[in-house]
Amino acid sequence: MPAFTAPLRTLMGPGPSDVSPRVLAALAQPTIGHLDPEFIRLMDETKVLLQYAFQTKNQMTFPVSAPGSAGMECALVNLLEPGDKAVVCVNGVFGGRMRDIVGRIGGTAIVVEDTWGTPVDPQKVEDALKQNPSAKVLAWVQAETSTGAESDSATLAKLGHAHGCLLVTDTVTALGGTPLKVDEWGLDAVYSGTQKCLSCVPGLSPVTFSERALDAVKKRKTPCVSWFLDISLLMGYWSGENRRAYHHTAPINANYALHEALTILREEGLENSWARHRKHHLALRAGVEALGLSFVVAEAHRLPQLNSISIPAGVDEAAVRKTLLNEHGIEIGAGLGSMAGKIWRIGVMGHSARQENILKVVGALETVLRAMGQKLDAGAATAAVRKAYGS
Amino acid sequence: MPAFTAPLRTLMGPGPSDVSPRVLAALAQPTIGHLDPEFIRLMDETKVLLQYAFQTKNQMTFPVSAPGSAGMECALVNLLEPGDKAVVCVNGVFGGRMRDIVGRIGGTAIVVEDTWGTPVDPQKVEDALKQNPSAKVLAWVQAETSTGAESDSATLAKLGHAHGCLLVTDTVTALGGTPLKVDEWGLDAVYSGTQKCLSCVPGLSPVTFSERALDAVKKRKTPCVSWFLDISLLMGYWSGENRRAYHHTAPINANYALHEALTILREEGLENSWARHRKHHLALRAGVEALGLSFVVAEAHRLPQLNSISIPAGVDEAAVRKTLLNEHGIEIGAGLGSMAGKIWRIGVMGHSARQENILKVVGALETVLRAMGQKLDAGAATAAVRKAYGS
Repeated sequence: MPAFTAPLRTLMGPGPSDVSPRVLAALAQPTIGHLDPEFIRLMDETKVLLQYAFQTKNQMTFPVSAPGSAGMECALVNLLEPGDKAVVCVNGVFGGRMRDIVGRIGGTAIVVEDTWGTPVDPQKVEDALKQNPSAKVLAWVQAETSTGAESDSATLAKLGHAHGCLLVTDTVTALGGTPLKVDEWGLDAVYSGTQKCLSCVPGLSPVTFSERALDAVKKRKTPCVSWFLDISLLMGYWSGENRRAYHHTAPINANYALHEALTILREEGLENSWARHRKHHLALRAGVEALGLSFVVAEAHRLPQLNSISIPAGVDEAAVRKTLLNEHGIEIGAGLGSMAGKIWRIGVMGHSARQENILKVVGALETVLRAMGQKLDAGAATAAVRKAYGS
Repeated sequence: MPAFTAPLRTLMGPGPSDVSPRVLAALAQPTIGHLDPEFIRLMDETKVLLQYAFQTKNQMTFPVSAPGSAGMECALVNLLEPGDKAVVCVNGVFGGRMRDIVGRIGGTAIVVEDTWGTPVDPQKVEDALKQNPSAKVLAWVQAETSTGAESDSATLAKLGHAHGCLLVTDTVTALGGTPLKVDEWGLDAVYSGTQKCLSCVPGLSPVTFSERALDAVKKRKTPCVSWFLDISLLMGYWSGENRRAYHHTAPINANYALHEALTILREEGLENSWARHRKHHLALRAGVEALGLSFVVAEAHRLPQLNSISIPAGVDEAAVRKTLLNEHGIEIGAGLGSMAGKIWRIGVMGHSARQENILKVVGALETVLRAMGQKLDAGAATAAVRKAYGS
């Protein structure tokens, strides 16, 4: 079996996004031990960098040693015990996954459902909280990766606080791409991924737990159902005062990469990163509209980093994606769940959010759609993108 | 905050082991999508390479997207439901961790305890199985990383089969370093790590599930307590016939690295790898004995890849490790749990199992122990190592 040679792609799907050469170089440094003093220093610095990214002072801020779905599980299995109630907002795949996890650990999920492509409706959440005064947790997805809709975390957090809930927020696609203020909003257990707007390799899930969340963990009557994700054990490894207790072997090299990706984010500045995502989203929008395509999500709730586009009538959506990949080296995403076959998802995330990439994906889409018989003026869409950039 | 520069270490502890430059180069290739046809091809090839390493034809053979402890949890949470009984052999830290996990998921662990540093006693296991005819699972650690003792998996497997149990085997430190024959022995749920004798970066846990195990999963009355580790969901991603169903975002780059590490293992050949580990272990043994040090584990049960050495009287063991690290760039391991402060653990694993490394660690230990006042002839220990190599 020959060595595997990765093809060169331009990653404009729902993640992973393009990883910068700086991050790949950091990743490839020699492996050291998980209790090496130099690795402990890296862990300490990573915590500080993640506190900045999450806008929090939470001590318990660190990357779970597994992808974002393990981060989701980490938040829920630590806060919920069998018999606990959680109000779970479902407006896409990832809200549905939360509901599933709540059930598996013996909790009861009270589901607040909204149409895919729309944000979570605060009025419905308030109604559910009033009807379920014993709910321990309110959980929602700030940036639904399956639809591209953003929910209003600040408003949802106020409602949750007013009803005494712990707040679990999925920020997998939000972190680094769109405003997220963990302390200002008072979120309690927040998880993210590395392969979206941080443009790091996949495999880690940054999380942050508030003091309120840690108090709730201390008051549990039953042990956390997962040994691997038990925050009371992870604390000894990530936050031990004098010495770090061995828990598991952290993915050393992935942590090198995350440190570098977070350093890049701090160099740019969070606000600048948010603005950059918005700028390139607007340029993409100009191109998408010039192609006669429309967005699934209403403008007010659109995530700049995740653009869901309706498939035009008569277009073989899978063939378009295949041609983009094979002939242009561009990955865009398909729809998930009930949106499979109905939408494309174009990511504008992290290191992928660059002018050359927006021009490339719009230009390639124009070429492919024209070849499939769509009536489009050659060059009109990229001209619209250039105009949006003011160039 | 400046960029993190990893120091150069020679990793002679209980893992991670030294990662070969070939594997680091594979790791640093550009990230592609987790549903990219080229990544699917990599996944298919990785399954074949892992089947070779595990010596199995099991279709469900793949790396869990998290470290070895998540692999342990994956094996147990899929096979056990609340109320199920498992006979768990505990002769070190990792058997104890299995017991802990069984309890967390509502199972009952019947513990067969053996002294740390000794193998699991088959007679005690047989007694426990006779006394607990309803036990669904028999679980043990083949290579106890905390002590360096090897248990006899072939014999334990026969006992488990005779009593109708599903067999869960921890092979984190065994895989690639010491004989392991999943199909010949009839093991049902086997997990390992990448950062021991495979010398890949940490962060993935190769696992293999037999048809018997998958049948048991299909017959479950309750859903697996973990969404992230639910094998019935993971099958769609790792084994879908025509198309792969999205489950989570795999750690793409870590999978590049694992593919390369497994390719290296196949190039060398499993038997040759086992023999190489043994050869360098014997050379290390010669050096250790020339230093007047003794092994914790009796010769017949010693793992070549994990050498537990008793600390000589009057020696500050932590100071020795610190000096080895800071002045010689060598990492060796401390004791874990009840063996903390009593032993050193010297790993001879994967890419670290090379003559130059054995000479280096023995020579450095001699220097450090002499500087601490131990009566040792200069150069005697490395001479013993050279003699063992026949050079």
